[in-house]
Amino acid sequence: MRSPTKFSKIPAASITRLSIYSRYLEALAQEGVKIIASDKLAQKCGINPAQIRKDLAYFGEFGIRGVGYFVKELLFEIKRILGLNKVWKMALVGVGNLGSALLAHQNFARQGYEFAAVFDVDPAKVGRRLPNGLIIHHLDELERVVKETGVEIGVIATPGTQAQEVAQRLIQAGIRAILNFAPIQLQVPEGMAVENVDFTVKLDNLAYHLTMGNA
Amino acid sequence: MRSPTKFSKIPAASITRLSIYSRYLEALAQEGVKIIASDKLAQKCGINPAQIRKDLAYFGEFGIRGVGYFVKELLFEIKRILGLNKVWKMALVGVGNLGSALLAHQNFARQGYEFAAVFDVDPAKVGRRLPNGLIIHHLDELERVVKETGVEIGVIATPGTQAQEVAQRLIQAGIRAILNFAPIQLQVPEGMAVENVDFTVKLDNLAYHLTMGNA
Repeated sequence: MRSPTKFSKIPAASITRLSIYSRYLEALAQEGVKIIASDKLAQKCGINPAQIRKDLAYFGEFGIRGVGYFVKELLFEIKRILGLNKVWKMALVGVGNLGSALLAHQNFARQGYEFAAVFDVDPAKVGRRLPNGLIIHHLDELERVVKETGVEIGVIATPGTQAQEVAQRLIQAGIRAILNFAPIQLQVPEGMAVENVDFTVKLDNLAYHLTMGNA
Repeated sequence: MRSPTKFSKIPAASITRLSIYSRYLEALAQEGVKIIASDKLAQKCGINPAQIRKDLAYFGEFGIRGVGYFVKELLFEIKRILGLNKVWKMALVGVGNLGSALLAHQNFARQGYEFAAVFDVDPAKVGRRLPNGLIIHHLDELERVVKETGVEIGVIATPGTQAQEVAQRLIQAGIRAILNFAPIQLQVPEGMAVENVDFTVKLDNLAYHLTMGNA
């Protein structure tokens, strides 16, 4: 019987795993599965069952011993914990190939993330209307547009050379969370949340599997 | 004093963390840092020090108690463990916005991953020469080109609707490791290594931080 810990002490890795559990639970809910054994959920997620129980124990008591978890209930709780019971508005900075791919990516909307504003500095792009109806603003309009649209998350898809300046502008505009696709470590003040997307970490997993002959 | 475990028993999460350690160690090596305390490395990586020691203990004894790790030595060992002491050749399938962004991404080459072949099915794209010198092949040529170029990792950047078929073709061509950017769960035979890139898992971390007021 563990009581819920203070939220601030929960390791980042647990939060990432909660997010992964929610993806599988969502798929199960769509398939009409009502209950899942913790071993089965663990296996699907590639995580050991003790770890799942530990991650969930940070937030309270879930599931029934010997039975498993109620899929919809657990999904609802995880979404509540992660703050996914609302739509999060994002600002994209950089409408190159990567930015365009992100705008077209179906997973964002499906998971409750919405691009509410788009920025670039290229005169050939600024003012253009995108297929999703948004107009590309100049980066100089960031502060105004962020305020008007209620954007809370900034997404940086610029070249590495511009990413630090863009991060500073986002912070000045009141953004406190950044998803960074540029291949640099951003320097940000204490209290800012930054997540870096580094595809090569995933490739390292593949390389390891191929090297060890596990694949 | 723990002895190295059998490699096959090492959790995937440890491998991912090794990859993250290597990124920081690389940055430290470039800055000329020779030794780093395990607490400092842990802090930089956002992981607790006990976890780092545990991850490394799978592979042997590293570092000196009370001193820390020799940056270059540890980096070399991690790269050896992950199989990063060689260049891995990749085949990209899908030269849309995302595929084009991946081809231009500087991090791949920096980390020892190289696109050696590129495929699409769009007649307007097949036969075109890319800025990096590669010619876009038709997917029907996959098997031949994979053999000729020695590609070992397949990268899927197609729409979700085509990803499963592409995965099957990659497997038929002898590929045993896939990096999947399409927003679907691939069905693959036992023994295949698949890593899914899901940007929204990173966003969930940001949403959580904003919700909990940690950011």
